[in-house]
Amino acid sequence: MTPINTVDAAVDDRFEEYVADLTRLVSQPSISATGEGIRECAELLRSLTAEYGFDTAEIVETSGHPAVIAHAFVDNDPDNDAPTVLVYGHYDVQPVVPAEWTDPPFEPTRREIDGREYLYGRGTVDNKGQHVAYLAAVETLRETVGLPVNVTLLLDGEEESGSPNLMEVVEARESALRADVSINSDGPVDESGRPTVVFGNRGILIVEVSVRGPNGDLHSGHYGGAIPNPARELTRLLGTMYADDGRIAIDGFYDDIEPITETDRDLIAAIEPDIDELTAKLGVGDLEDGPGETVLEKTLYYPTLNINGLAGGHVEEGYKTIVPSTASATIDARLVVDQTPDGVFDRIAAHVERHADDRFETTLTRHGEMDPTRTPVDSPYRKPLVDAVAEGWGAEPVVKPLSGGSAPYALFTDVLGLPHVSIPHGQRDNNQHSADEHYALDHFKKGIRTSTRVLRAVATAADEDRKDGADAGESR
Amino acid sequence: MTPINTVDAAVDDRFEEYVADLTRLVSQPSISATGEGIRECAELLRSLTAEYGFDTAEIVETSGHPAVIAHAFVDNDPDNDAPTVLVYGHYDVQPVVPAEWTDPPFEPTRREIDGREYLYGRGTVDNKGQHVAYLAAVETLRETVGLPVNVTLLLDGEEESGSPNLMEVVEARESALRADVSINSDGPVDESGRPTVVFGNRGILIVEVSVRGPNGDLHSGHYGGAIPNPARELTRLLGTMYADDGRIAIDGFYDDIEPITETDRDLIAAIEPDIDELTAKLGVGDLEDGPGETVLEKTLYYPTLNINGLAGGHVEEGYKTIVPSTASATIDARLVVDQTPDGVFDRIAAHVERHADDRFETTLTRHGEMDPTRTPVDSPYRKPLVDAVAEGWGAEPVVKPLSGGSAPYALFTDVLGLPHVSIPHGQRDNNQHSADEHYALDHFKKGIRTSTRVLRAVATAADEDRKDGADAGESR
Repeated sequence: MTPINTVDAAVDDRFEEYVADLTRLVSQPSISATGEGIRECAELLRSLTAEYGFDTAEIVETSGHPAVIAHAFVDNDPDNDAPTVLVYGHYDVQPVVPAEWTDPPFEPTRREIDGREYLYGRGTVDNKGQHVAYLAAVETLRETVGLPVNVTLLLDGEEESGSPNLMEVVEARESALRADVSINSDGPVDESGRPTVVFGNRGILIVEVSVRGPNGDLHSGHYGGAIPNPARELTRLLGTMYADDGRIAIDGFYDDIEPITETDRDLIAAIEPDIDELTAKLGVGDLEDGPGETVLEKTLYYPTLNINGLAGGHVEEGYKTIVPSTASATIDARLVVDQTPDGVFDRIAAHVERHADDRFETTLTRHGEMDPTRTPVDSPYRKPLVDAVAEGWGAEPVVKPLSGGSAPYALFTDVLGLPHVSIPHGQRDNNQHSADEHYALDHFKKGIRTSTRVLRAVATAADEDRKDGADAGESR
Repeated sequence: MTPINTVDAAVDDRFEEYVADLTRLVSQPSISATGEGIRECAELLRSLTAEYGFDTAEIVETSGHPAVIAHAFVDNDPDNDAPTVLVYGHYDVQPVVPAEWTDPPFEPTRREIDGREYLYGRGTVDNKGQHVAYLAAVETLRETVGLPVNVTLLLDGEEESGSPNLMEVVEARESALRADVSINSDGPVDESGRPTVVFGNRGILIVEVSVRGPNGDLHSGHYGGAIPNPARELTRLLGTMYADDGRIAIDGFYDDIEPITETDRDLIAAIEPDIDELTAKLGVGDLEDGPGETVLEKTLYYPTLNINGLAGGHVEEGYKTIVPSTASATIDARLVVDQTPDGVFDRIAAHVERHADDRFETTLTRHGEMDPTRTPVDSPYRKPLVDAVAEGWGAEPVVKPLSGGSAPYALFTDVLGLPHVSIPHGQRDNNQHSADEHYALDHFKKGIRTSTRVLRAVATAADEDRKDGADAGESR
């Protein structure tokens, strides 16, 4: 038996225990939006990491919900010289509407459908199952070939609410979070079903634009056309943000954008969706105009300004013919490096300042933000990690230089100065964020197997990385 | 005692009975939106009109809720030669949210506040109390000086739902509805508190503009900026409907507009609100641009295109960062003579056809409409009616050539060929359409007194009008 076969055998032996522990963890509600069960879940994770052989575990308080930090040291020695991997996950879950669930969301049920086994429950895949994979990996490595790398587990209690206090945790525990690389597993694998390795994310800025007109709704027969209408102003003002060619018409909106590298072009060319197929599937006539020639160029390499929603006054059959008092829109800007939420907000604010009609009171409210993050795809971690995933999963991974979505990983890249890589293990049809969330148990097992190899690969790659750094006389 | 003093004395004697009958009528729910109590209310009115001495009363079926038509003939003789006044009213009421009411909406309560008496209940002022005034007027005239004019009472059962089937009633009973003039009393008197005589209304067309994009909400990180956004398209499309100078940019929107006459200019100059005072009171910086120099010019003599509301996607704090699947707006166009809902709808549809982005499915839905109506203010009815109101009310009325709102009176002017005059008797703070609707009993009594004089004035004026017509060799 090769060493890795021994590890896999240990995973097979223990797999039912891992499913039982995941079931226990999912049975504990932990909804960050309401706070339900958050504290209990953090306590449970503190004891669970100890059961899995972590050497320390701490609940870190924040202005919001606490985080959990646990360390597993090589040879149980906090002072060893081995590389360290920071594993990020989140123990909080999305809210639930129990009536929409087949079985209660916090009473996990195991079901076999078409010969495939699933664990149903809120948080199974997002992200409890995916960070439990690392607990299992640490344990099985220790019991077989030995833990080759220090593992620092950082579990966020507010990811589903936008991680508003994760920066506090990073600042308060900066030395405890020092590592060579950070990794996380969350969400589903690529649409193709192949495993996936992602090196970055766009950032986000969510802004509500609110226009206040008359101090109450007015009868449109008596006032319409005479008293300025805030819904008309909102549509006009939003209109000024877009140019006829589909580009965002806010001054400087496309500044600070890095060009697409040839390496990136090669990678995305391999995974670029067919435009006709995609637009037909989604039921729209064609792609949006604006910068970028393809779907991935548009959604990975350019910032966007997207209207999430419009509200105000009365829409629906019936007679409520009013000049509404207010109208508002929520817009999200997806940001690319080197943009910042502050910089883009200032540009939006300057635009509104310049274009708003002063007969109204127009206000901007920031509702959330995350920085963009990029780890170069020519990072020394790429090949070892891709190889580890290919072997652990039994399929060649899709390598994505970026995801169009947003995540708080810039804290690791920009604040802690680490390369960050995402290796999701969820199946595509996992219902995360909606009812009947479920995790395919074959993905869970592949996730554990992959995680054991990822930890081993990190050990080797980090050693190489450190050596390279030393050779080149770089300071870390 | 002069004849009219005898009439007033009879009103005084009977007033408590009139309040009791109004209480009985208000106790009967009649919500056209739900149909609750509609049939029972029509039956109650049939018997009530008989009690008040009407000679005939009929429930007229329609495709929706029935109307009630009752006749009171001079000398109880259907074949008399006296003039006839058509009195329009509605027995249906707005929906109620009982929890918002101090007392149950259909259990009328009489309350004295600051020395003034009110009857609280849904429909007290809108419009049960105001058409009961005509029942009372018919009865007291009959019992004193005699009924000088035939009265045809037409009570709509669907006014609060936009009178969708009133045309059916008019067509089915055209000969029974033949008259010299039509009159109604509904809503509040002028803001000044003075009685009010109104000679016309703008029309209305309510249209929902709906834009469908992708066939489901999409993750804005993965699709925003690549898949066209229907909320962005809706704001753009609405934007094309307005020119920079505030005018409506729909081709031909201002066609078919009659110029403001000097008579009208004189009348509105007397009641024009102060712009600074009005905008300060309503909390807006200034009037809307576009045609018309003053509030009344804008809201009476020009058509408007007003956004009633916007909806689509998600607005509110929190992370729901999507490309919404649909977005829609409801707009109402207020129409002036000689515009028609059909004509204006065609212009809006042509505009949308021309400007809509064909990557989306854009649809227009008509949700309601009424024709504009005007009775010339130099009508022979003006002076007698204004004098009657002044005497009955004890104050000089405000004479309005038009109201900016909309009402189904074009059926009388355009289909039946009658002059139509509105003489509202509600107090301003009546809460019609909201909770705790109430009618000031002094207004109710003044309404009855005024109605007796209005019926007498109509008799005289109609005689003059007929004579003028005959002198001039006109055909009626």
